Amino acid sequence: MKADLGEVENLVALRDALREFSRARDWHHYHSPKNLAMAMIVEAGELVEHFQWLTPEQSASLPPEKLAEVKDEVADVLIYLVELADVLNIDLLCAAREKMQKNAIKYPAS
Amino acid sequence: MKADLGEVENLVALRDALREFSRARDWHHYHSPKNLAMAMIVEAGELVEHFQWLTPEQSASLPPEKLAEVKDEVADVLIYLVELADVLNIDLLCAAREKMQKNAIKYPAS
Amino acid sequence: MKADLGEVENLVALRDALREFSRARDWHHYHSPKNLAMAMIVEAGELVEHFQWLTPEQSASLPPEKLAEVKDEVADVLIYLVELADVLNIDLLCAAREKMQKNAIKYPAS
Amino acid sequence: MKADLGEVENLVALRDALREFSRARDWHHYHSPKNLAMAMIVEAGELVEHFQWLTPEQSASLPPEKLAEVKDEVADVLIYLVELADVLNIDLLCAAREKMQKNAIKYPAS
Repeated sequence: MKADLGEVENLVALRDALREFSRARDWHHYHSPKNLAMAMIVEAGELVEHFQWLTPEQSASLPPEKLAEVKDEVADVLIYLVELADVLNIDLLCAAREKMQKNAIKYPAS
Repeated sequence: MKADLGEVENLVALRDALREFSRARDWHHYHSPKNLAMAMIVEAGELVEHFQWLTPEQSASLPPEKLAEVKDEVADVLIYLVELADVLNIDLLCAAREKMQKNAIKYPAS
Repeated sequence: MKADLGEVENLVALRDALREFSRARDWHHYHSPKNLAMAMIVEAGELVEHFQWLTPEQSASLPPEKLAEVKDEVADVLIYLVELADVLNIDLLCAAREKMQKNAIKYPAS
Repeated sequence: MKADLGEVENLVALRDALREFSRARDWHHYHSPKNLAMAMIVEAGELVEHFQWLTPEQSASLPPEKLAEVKDEVADVLIYLVELADVLNIDLLCAAREKMQKNAIKYPAS
């Protein structure tokens, strides 16, 4: 990769690094929103797999090697989510802000 | 919400706003990693639903009202992913950088 | 529906009823394996949603109205799974038998 | 396994074989509805993975070795779905019939 990943310090930089990564591998023609949404939920499933037989308490105190695997899966979900938002021209943080405003109305704090 | 959502300009600020949101509603005791991983994949499913009967081409040219719905679902996945990473003490951008470095080795550009 | 659903007493009869249901609505051209797999996981997500904030114990003693909703979601997953297996010419029970034989070797009983 | 899997010719026999399989391995205490729903969607994700980069047309003409893998994943989803229905005392075929009756009203044939 030409991009210096050390410079990936925010979602926009991550998006740009992912664009370059896909372009360098000619993966763009696979990256329809439909396909990226599928890839994202597949990674979500791999993340869920780590927790399926754990008690809620166990899930909160993972051993280090398991946590490292979970970290990789969390990253995969984020990567596909950023790529999906990119092809749809959605600003992820803007979307999250707007959703939180809706949630604040839907679920008022007591 | 006390937090000014206009200030949510990066993932750390989003995490902080979500912490405050959950604390104000006393939702913390529901937020085990196990439960948050489930909530995340449920939202991922709602996102996938928008694309299930579309051709790849149709998925890339959503009408505005559909795109607005997809934006909300994308936000929901991000929100739960940030909350999950938070309770696991995972730095999302760090995780993404490390995963991209592994991917660069696994899938070398031609 | 022409088919008498009361006669749907096994998976083959369910498959046949679903074939007729789709044919009568001209839905066949949507039913690629790719699309049906997506529809199936979307329904799986709706099923998971019912359990996401429950303790394992609560999930085992659902109130009747919640159980009725869960029953509908379980049915939706089965329906899409049967339709997916059908378009792939997979015999579901045969597949399950073969998988259980592999599992019996992989996980020997103590 | 004591059970002769060759006799697993319907969903009830599959349920019984799975009960015996879990009992012989002392897995019952893991099998809350919450956990089984998670396991089911994880397998659903593994199934979706096979289709994520394929065109709809490609998904309908899988090479034999790929189809064999898909068959295993389809079986895994069915297995967890049967186990989930079992712990919830849901009759799968009854649930499917009732759902198809609702669908016939919701989506009348033209």
